[in-house]
Formats: sequence, structure tokens, C-alpha cells
Amino acid sequence: MKLISCTLLLAVLLSSFSHQTKKRIVFFGDSITQAGVQPTGFITKMKQMMEKKKMDSQYELMGAGISGNKIYDLYLRIDEDVLAKKPDVVVIWVGVNDVWHKQSSGTGTDADKFEKFYNAVIKKLQAANISVYLCTPAAIGEKTDFTNQLDGDLNKYSNIIRSIAKNNNCPVIDLRKSFLEYNLANNKENKESGILTSDKVHLNEQGNTFVAREIWKVLNSMVTKN
Amino acid sequence: MKLISCTLLLAVLLSSFSHQTKKRIVFFGDSITQAGVQPTGFITKMKQMMEKKKMDSQYELMGAGISGNKIYDLYLRIDEDVLAKKPDVVVIWVGVNDVWHKQSSGTGTDADKFEKFYNAVIKKLQAANISVYLCTPAAIGEKTDFTNQLDGDLNKYSNIIRSIAKNNNCPVIDLRKSFLEYNLANNKENKESGILTSDKVHLNEQGNTFVAREIWKVLNSMVTKN
Amino acid sequence: MKLISCTLLLAVLLSSFSHQTKKRIVFFGDSITQAGVQPTGFITKMKQMMEKKKMDSQYELMGAGISGNKIYDLYLRIDEDVLAKKPDVVVIWVGVNDVWHKQSSGTGTDADKFEKFYNAVIKKLQAANISVYLCTPAAIGEKTDFTNQLDGDLNKYSNIIRSIAKNNNCPVIDLRKSFLEYNLANNKENKESGILTSDKVHLNEQGNTFVAREIWKVLNSMVTKN
Amino acid sequence: MKLISCTLLLAVLLSSFSHQTKKRIVFFGDSITQAGVQPTGFITKMKQMMEKKKMDSQYELMGAGISGNKIYDLYLRIDEDVLAKKPDVVVIWVGVNDVWHKQSSGTGTDADKFEKFYNAVIKKLQAANISVYLCTPAAIGEKTDFTNQLDGDLNKYSNIIRSIAKNNNCPVIDLRKSFLEYNLANNKENKESGILTSDKVHLNEQGNTFVAREIWKVLNSMVTKN
Repeated sequence: MKLISCTLLLAVLLSSFSHQTKKRIVFFGDSITQAGVQPTGFITKMKQMMEKKKMDSQYELMGAGISGNKIYDLYLRIDEDVLAKKPDVVVIWVGVNDVWHKQSSGTGTDADKFEKFYNAVIKKLQAANISVYLCTPAAIGEKTDFTNQLDGDLNKYSNIIRSIAKNNNCPVIDLRKSFLEYNLANNKENKESGILTSDKVHLNEQGNTFVAREIWKVLNSMVTKN
Repeated sequence: MKLISCTLLLAVLLSSFSHQTKKRIVFFGDSITQAGVQPTGFITKMKQMMEKKKMDSQYELMGAGISGNKIYDLYLRIDEDVLAKKPDVVVIWVGVNDVWHKQSSGTGTDADKFEKFYNAVIKKLQAANISVYLCTPAAIGEKTDFTNQLDGDLNKYSNIIRSIAKNNNCPVIDLRKSFLEYNLANNKENKESGILTSDKVHLNEQGNTFVAREIWKVLNSMVTKN
Repeated sequence: MKLISCTLLLAVLLSSFSHQTKKRIVFFGDSITQAGVQPTGFITKMKQMMEKKKMDSQYELMGAGISGNKIYDLYLRIDEDVLAKKPDVVVIWVGVNDVWHKQSSGTGTDADKFEKFYNAVIKKLQAANISVYLCTPAAIGEKTDFTNQLDGDLNKYSNIIRSIAKNNNCPVIDLRKSFLEYNLANNKENKESGILTSDKVHLNEQGNTFVAREIWKVLNSMVTKN
Repeated sequence: MKLISCTLLLAVLLSSFSHQTKKRIVFFGDSITQAGVQPTGFITKMKQMMEKKKMDSQYELMGAGISGNKIYDLYLRIDEDVLAKKPDVVVIWVGVNDVWHKQSSGTGTDADKFEKFYNAVIKKLQAANISVYLCTPAAIGEKTDFTNQLDGDLNKYSNIIRSIAKNNNCPVIDLRKSFLEYNLANNKENKESGILTSDKVHLNEQGNTFVAREIWKVLNSMVTKN
């Protein structure tokens, strides 16, 4: 009896000293994620939400976003920038540049290669016992009359991500879907930006709050489930 | 009584001597229109429809489509290929290459230049007292899950055409709209072609019949109206 | 004798009253020409050269450059922006955007359409008895190891311009050729900009001086010849 | 005398038992390499050259080319298609699609990613003690007046390959250089294809012979050296 209590006490003490008890979540993505750690970014907002809910002792949030990144850039830097941080959870948010660079510089990613490298990224993470969450690419343009030039491809690559998620048992944070719904309800003037984005792609204040909530909703439901 | 018969006789005689009594309709466009004069093409089908309705003495249908044409190609050859034929009506169907060439060869048409050249084409035709009908570009891909890569731009350029039509008092044959509706109803399997097109763009048998009817519907209603 | 002196006197008097005696030169082009009228621009520099040579009473120089223009933009605004100014000479400098927009926005100009619209522009100017001078596009990148991405197309479109010039009896200011030669001699470090351009395309101080001299050389030789 | 015969016998026996005595060379690349194993392909021609020189017992040549491949496609299939074959030598010939796809489908490879994946491929091969030979991309168009549209980028990516080769101690078969030299000497009519290629990219009979000799020259000199 005494022995057990001592062990328990020790465990409690250790856990309060060790950061191992904090779940480490790394956000892995492009410029949108890179901006997420800014003072008004969605990662910062998630930290603030957790503080309010007194959950900040349970989670440690880290950004690993680099501007211009496509899926194969994530693959190329996964060891150094993600695995080295020994995360418990990784939230991948990528795809905008894979589609957009087709038009802007001729160096977008073929759909089939997008899938192959995405699977390779997940495989590496899951091999390290990391829980992987996938986000669909939110938007390149917020117009609601179906005239955003790259919507077709964004929808296609989002479908690929949804299918990858299913095949790999990863929860999806379907930002593509939730951005469209939000815009249909709130962008009656058919603006190309200014609703959730500042420039068709990157999040404005409202966008950062929206994304923080969307990601939290899914993360929290999964954590509760497990 | 006698006078009337004489007048009638004269009218019949005149009409048989002069082809001026036939309304000449020129179809002005790209490869889709070029294929329209083939044995199963939509222009040929319209001729057959008119024969059945005994209206073929009233109309003369001519094709003026050239593969790969964009709006500024139409502008460059309008004198020779259209005005020289002294048509009463011109049906313009263009836009697929203006959008598609952005991706296939980097030589699509800027939206604002598309509008400028389209207006210049209409101005030239209307200055020659020609009735001008505008078609919106039907499709580049028939998928119904909003993943056709070029849908965003096709919708945008269709909007431009609808607006040009309004500003110039031209009836619109809204093939973009009617193709989408037909596919939503008939392409449950989300195929990229094979419903109204053979290859995502060019008309198959069913597509030619569909287009012949859509154009006839608008042409006939306008003729009846006037 | 008396008659002749009177006529001469009259001519002198008229020329001092009328600005018609000044040869009006309009520079017709894109952003490079648009910047030419700035305080350090090549058109301003040409004016200063003429003042030094006491030739400024003979020439009037006007800019008609608009950022982003391709050959068909020149065509679309030629009446308003050039013919309305009743120039004696027009110097056309275009081509960089026709090539570059293929890559940057998918809306470059097909080589055969480039030729057609260029010929149409010249035809309109020559029909108004205007002397037309053609410039080849100078550079998109100044590297001297043949790795500027768009050199192949720039060379191709320059060849088209040289051929158009020949067919229409227009003098050529071959900036493509003279920029290459200048860079081979002065850009030993293989820099992509900073020799004659500030940003691979637009002229720096040295570039503006260089272009002013190159244009003047050809203009002056033609004027002397005639 | 007896000793020698015994040794010879042993050698013959050993060589018939072990395929280790044959140097296995795998050609790793795109459609050009894929066509290399055809009856008139350059790999087949190299086999025939070796037979003539009685060297075919020393070498085993295998093709591993797949149409449309870019450097990251090679990376994705290296384990299965190359390492599994346990080669002694790998000849990498890639780059045409990395450049060309920028224009044809918007999915070319960024220069810096090209370098990263190329280095990753070499690292994997060298870790398996394989000798790696690099080819520069030969041509997309054979024009000799510097108007091939993609020459700038082909030269840039060839420079990257030359630099990678140097850094990794890999011999280079500089096909870009040798094709240019051959064309300058033999393509006086400035044809875009028909000299060493059938279609600007893929080898014709003469091209296959030329490439077989160029590769052999370098392979043989290295083998002799070692």
C-alpha cells in the first residue's frame, strides 16, 4: 500500500517537472502556418483559448510553417523541422502552393505526386507514433459566384486529402468546406478577399479566429474520444 | 381578289429567284463550330430540323469556325470570314481557348482584353446591321463535383459574355448554364467527358443535338418576337 | 530673286509661329516607355541631348507607354493615344510582356498573333504617313551564360520584329542585340540585373542613357539620310 | 602450365556461377531512357558496341526509364526500380520534364527543389556503393539561332547538374554541351528537329548512335581509370 502511494506520488511529481506530460502539437505547413505564430495568428489564438480553459498545462503548440512550401517541401524537411521536435500530434496544412504555383511559376505539383508525397509524409509521422491531422486548403479567393480561378483544382486536391485521410485513419479539419460555407453565408457582396483572408489566401483577424476554432473543435473531439 | 393572287405569285417568284429572302446565319467560332458543319455537327442538325419544319427556305446556315481561335482571332478575320458573307445573323461562340490556352501554352486572353475585343467584334457586326447572338463557353470537363480545373475561369468569362450581351442588346444562348444543368441531371457518375462532349470540350452526338436545340430555341424565339 | 527671298522669309516666319515645323516623335510601348518620361528616363535624356545639340527646336518628344502592354494593347489604343497626337514619327518598343506573361499569368501572345497585330499597328501608322521605327525587346534578365529563362522566346520575337521591319521598310533599333553585346562586354560577373536594368527588365540610370543613345543613333541617321 | 589452366578454369567456372563478375549498369531516367531499350535505342546500341568489342561478358545493361519522369519521380521509385536491381553503376539522365512541364502543365520543378531531390537520389545510390554518372538534358528543340523557347532553363538546370556532379564526385556525360556542338556543326538550316531528335526531344537513329558513343566514352574512360 505504502509502496504504491509512493510510486504514485513520484509519478505526479515527475510529471509536473517533465514536459513529457504536455502534449506537443506541431503545425506543419506553408506561409499561412508560418504566420500562425504571430501575435494575432491562429496558433497564438489557440494558445490563448487553452489558457482561458486552463488547458495550457496540457498542450504545447509549435509552428513549423515556411512560406511557399508545397507537399514535397514538407517531405524534404520533415526530419529536421518536425521529427526532431518529437511531437505527439502534427497538424498538416498544405496545398495552396501546390495548386497556385501551377499558374504563378509553372511549378505546381501533379495531383498524383501530391498524393504520393503526402502519403510518404504521413507514413514517416505515423512510424514515429505521431497522431496526424490533415487540413484541406482553405481558399485562393473568396468569391461566392464560383469564379475564383483556382477553385476547380483546390476542390480536386481537397478531395485527394480527404481520401488520404480516410486511408490513413487521420482526422480531417476540412477548412475548404468550412471556408466555403462561411463565405456563402457572410460574403453576399461576392468580394474576392476581406472576409476570412486579407489577400485571397492569408488569414485576416477574423480568419485566424475562425481557423483556431475549427482546428480546436477537431483536436478536442479526438482527444476526448481517445 | 385578282390583285392578291398576283401579289402572291410575285412574292413566290421573287423568293425563288433571289436568295436574299433567305436569312443568312453565320456561326463564328473555334474548333467546336468548325466541327458543327460535319455530317453529325450541330449546324447540320439545325439544317435538318429546319427541313422537317419546312423552314429551310427561310434560312441559310454557314459555318465560320477555325480550330484554336480565341476572341482576338475572330477579330482579326471578321472582315474576310464573316462580313464578306453579308450575313443577317451571326452567332458567336468563343471563349474555351481564351481560358484553356492559359494552361496549355501560356497564351490565354486577359479578362479585360477578352471584353475589349469581344466588344470590338460586336461593334463591327452591328455597324453592318447584323443581329448578333452570343454563346457562353459550354465546358472544359463535365465533372459535377466542382473539380474541373478551369471551371472558375469559364464561369468568369461566361459572366463577362453575359454582361457584354446585356450592354449590346444581344440575345444570349447560355450554353455554360445549360450544360451544367444537363450534367447535374445526367452525369451522376461524375465523368469528365462522354455526356455532351467526347473529350471534355468537343461535342459528341448527344452534345450536337443538345446545342442545335438550345441555339434554335433562342434564335426562333427572337425571330418570332421581331 | 525678290520672289525667292519673300518665299524664304515667309517660310521662316511660318516655321517660327507654327509648331508644325517641329517633328513630333511619339514613343509607343509598355512600362519601360512609360518610365522613359521620368526625370532620368530615356525620353527625358533624349530631350536633354537635343538641347545640348541645339536641336530641340526641331523635335518634340512624347511618351505613350502603359505598364503591362502587349502588342494587342497597343493596337487597341492606337487611335486615342497615338494617331490623335498626329505624330511624324512613332517609335514602337514592345514585346517583353508578350513573352513574359506566358509565364507570369498564362496570357502571353502567340508568335503568329504577335506578328499579325504588329503588322496591323504599322499599317495604321503608315496609312497616316507616319514614319515608324521598331525596337526589339531588350532583356528579361542580363545573365551572360545563356541561362536567362526567357531568352529563347525573346530572341524568337526579336527575329519576328526584324522581319516585320524589313517587310514594312521600317528602321530597327535593335536593343536586343545591343543589350546582349553590352552585357557580354560589361557583365563579367554574370549578374541577372544591375548592368543596364534595375530588375532584369526596367532601365537603370546607365540603361536609360544607353537606350537614349541607341535610339538617337538610328533616328538621326535616318533623318540625315532623308 | 597446369597451374595456369587451373586458374583459367576456375575463373570460367566462377564467372558462370556468379553474375557478380558482370558490371551491372542501370540507366535511370524518363521517356528518352525508356525508349533506349528499343531495338534501335541507345542502350541496345551500347550492348551491340560491347559485343563487337568482346566486352559483353563484362557488362550487363538495364533500362529504368519511365515516360514523363521528373527528378522527384526518380526519387519516389528509386528503391523498387533501381536499388532492388543491385547495380554497380547508375547513369541518371533527367531534366527535360522538370523544365518542359513548367510550360506544358504548370508542374515543372523549382530549380532549388531539383537540386535537393537530385542530391537525395545520389546520396541513396552512393550509400549502396553504386558509381553514379550524371547526364545533362540534351535538348528541347535543335534550333541553332538561340530561339528554342526553353534553352535558358535547360542551360540553367544543366549548370545545376554539373555543379551537383562536382560536389558528389560523379562523372558527367554532358549531352547538353555535345548536342549543342553537334547541332552548330550539322544543323546549318536551323531546323527545330531531325538532326539528333525526331521531335525536338526524343532521339532519332542518329541521336541514339550519338548518345551511345557519348555515354560509352565517359563510362569507358572511368572504368579504365579505376
